[in-house]
Amino acid sequence: MIVQHELRVTTEGRGTYDISDDVQRVVRDAGVRAGLCHVFICHTSASLMLCENADPSVMRDLETFMARRVPDGDPMFTHTSEGPDDMPAHIRSILTQSDLNLPVRDGRCALGTWQGVYLWEHRRAPHTRRVILTVHGD
Amino acid sequence: MIVQHELRVTTEGRGTYDISDDVQRVVRDAGVRAGLCHVFICHTSASLMLCENADPSVMRDLETFMARRVPDGDPMFTHTSEGPDDMPAHIRSILTQSDLNLPVRDGRCALGTWQGVYLWEHRRAPHTRRVILTVHGD
Amino acid sequence: MIVQHELRVTTEGRGTYDISDDVQRVVRDAGVRAGLCHVFICHTSASLMLCENADPSVMRDLETFMARRVPDGDPMFTHTSEGPDDMPAHIRSILTQSDLNLPVRDGRCALGTWQGVYLWEHRRAPHTRRVILTVHGD
Repeated sequence: MIVQHELRVTTEGRGTYDISDDVQRVVRDAGVRAGLCHVFICHTSASLMLCENADPSVMRDLETFMARRVPDGDPMFTHTSEGPDDMPAHIRSILTQSDLNLPVRDGRCALGTWQGVYLWEHRRAPHTRRVILTVHGD
Repeated sequence: MIVQHELRVTTEGRGTYDISDDVQRVVRDAGVRAGLCHVFICHTSASLMLCENADPSVMRDLETFMARRVPDGDPMFTHTSEGPDDMPAHIRSILTQSDLNLPVRDGRCALGTWQGVYLWEHRRAPHTRRVILTVHGD
Repeated sequence: MIVQHELRVTTEGRGTYDISDDVQRVVRDAGVRAGLCHVFICHTSASLMLCENADPSVMRDLETFMARRVPDGDPMFTHTSEGPDDMPAHIRSILTQSDLNLPVRDGRCALGTWQGVYLWEHRRAPHTRRVILTVHGD
């Protein structure tokens, strides 16, 4: 059985957005008991991530880390037509994930206790991001 | 339905190679309408990436970024038997992807408008790289 | 056909652990001839990686690289409740992989000659890590 569903995630600019509940709801509605749930983001300046979901300081530290290692406006970048956060957004995307696969067990994603599914918006401006979910299995 | 196919990608050395058309052709020939296309590279010194496919300056900036953060010949590396680009090639590979899953919808990979599928050769010398595609679905 | 299996990997603290044989054994026992094997780690401070499996210096250099780029105790981090290696473990995880898909061909994972599947423990203390394998195909 294969079920596909598209999510629209509205972001308010750079930052992480927990989409775990949306993903779990699609899996539950799909009626797959055992299999996989594939999550795909149709963009190259926002990405996906599995990360610790308990302490908000983790997300702040992730932004701090990226701000140090892939800073906006770094003079090494030439692809700046859309602004100083354009090329850093592409690099932050390729260093994280554009697609994730999550095991489905007993009708839901078998995430670890502290694992959340995040959409990471890397652009400073708000965007609407398309995410395609494909649930397959028995 | 499961269809497997192997691509051979000949590289001219370090750089990015757009394989989107090859992947789309394999998906079309597989006859899967809805499902997933898995792309896997059988090597540890070249990798896969989804990235912006419109402006060539993005690919140049990616190389510049890696040259700064994972430079060839960095004295911290001891695994140098195959040359100064050997260990950096492994690290650039683990920081990007060895496998990608792409959603198949209406018989083709449902990539975003600006998303291309790239093979990223990290060694300086030309290589022939094996890529295994597995298309599955209905 | 879908077969799920859970591995428990006991680590002795930070370092890489080759789980290729465990993965191959689960695939063989599953009886899938052609398809995919999905490997998923249920944690956010340990990760998965495909890497060169021949020369131990590669793994040492990987640790050296991470120690330089994502150092324990970096004062930029505020999420330190579990110690100086807590936040670096999350970042090292998101820069590598929480899930991998491997093509199954002729009843085994079609890894390249030099490709090994590694669990990378990023915490300094020993842990038991849960890994869910989902093998599917014909």
